[in-house]
Amino acid sequence: MKILVGYDGSRVAEDVLKLAQKHAVAFKAEVYIVTSLEQGPSLKKEDIDKAESKLEKIRKPFRAEDIPCEARTSVSYQSPGEDLVNFAKENDIDEIILGVRRRSKVGKLVFGSTAQYVILEAPCPVVAVK
Amino acid sequence: MKILVGYDGSRVAEDVLKLAQKHAVAFKAEVYIVTSLEQGPSLKKEDIDKAESKLEKIRKPFRAEDIPCEARTSVSYQSPGEDLVNFAKENDIDEIILGVRRRSKVGKLVFGSTAQYVILEAPCPVVAVK
Repeated sequence: MKILVGYDGSRVAEDVLKLAQKHAVAFKAEVYIVTSLEQGPSLKKEDIDKAESKLEKIRKPFRAEDIPCEARTSVSYQSPGEDLVNFAKENDIDEIILGVRRRSKVGKLVFGSTAQYVILEAPCPVVAVK
Repeated sequence: MKILVGYDGSRVAEDVLKLAQKHAVAFKAEVYIVTSLEQGPSLKKEDIDKAESKLEKIRKPFRAEDIPCEARTSVSYQSPGEDLVNFAKENDIDEIILGVRRRSKVGKLVFGSTAQYVILEAPCPVVAVK
């Protein structure tokens, strides 16, 4: 079994990683952690460097439990939602885990658009963590 | 561990039950299957009878695998989303599994409002199946 984790570095992302560990142990699964960044005028080199610098730290708890784990930054012209769904299709992913909570400008809890897209378009069940 | 399954008898509901079985085995979990019906002028006695009549059939595959399983119909003045979230809070549920796909009147795939509510308000991760 293969689990894809959409990692965006948000506060909920730590809970996402913990749940991915729990699922990987229970299902004896491999874990793919992907930080999707959309190519465009607002993407800075620092954003990519920051994401890359976190990968080793992210992998550590998985390796400590002997869970096969790949972590990578994906920069593409697709939206993060499309990028994650395509990754899932191309790699026969069985389950996607991702954070769904976002705060709107007025502080209300809302559904992130990436999460909505992934849940509706994914080729597999999606575990939503908030 | 305790898993709550929101069962609505839709086509995706069969996949939801299969996934619940898989998760119950992997996590050695108990399963609670709840069909939430909202009390109101549009709820007919036949709807309740129909839901009740399915419960035994729903429990069967779980019992065949020795998975502790309760299945029930819940009729309340709350929306199905509120009903499921309250059930999860009152029973210390660790994971909710439910179907998310609905077709809009023009045939487009949309996010069911129950699913949106449950994902944002649940006290635990929600596995969305479409």
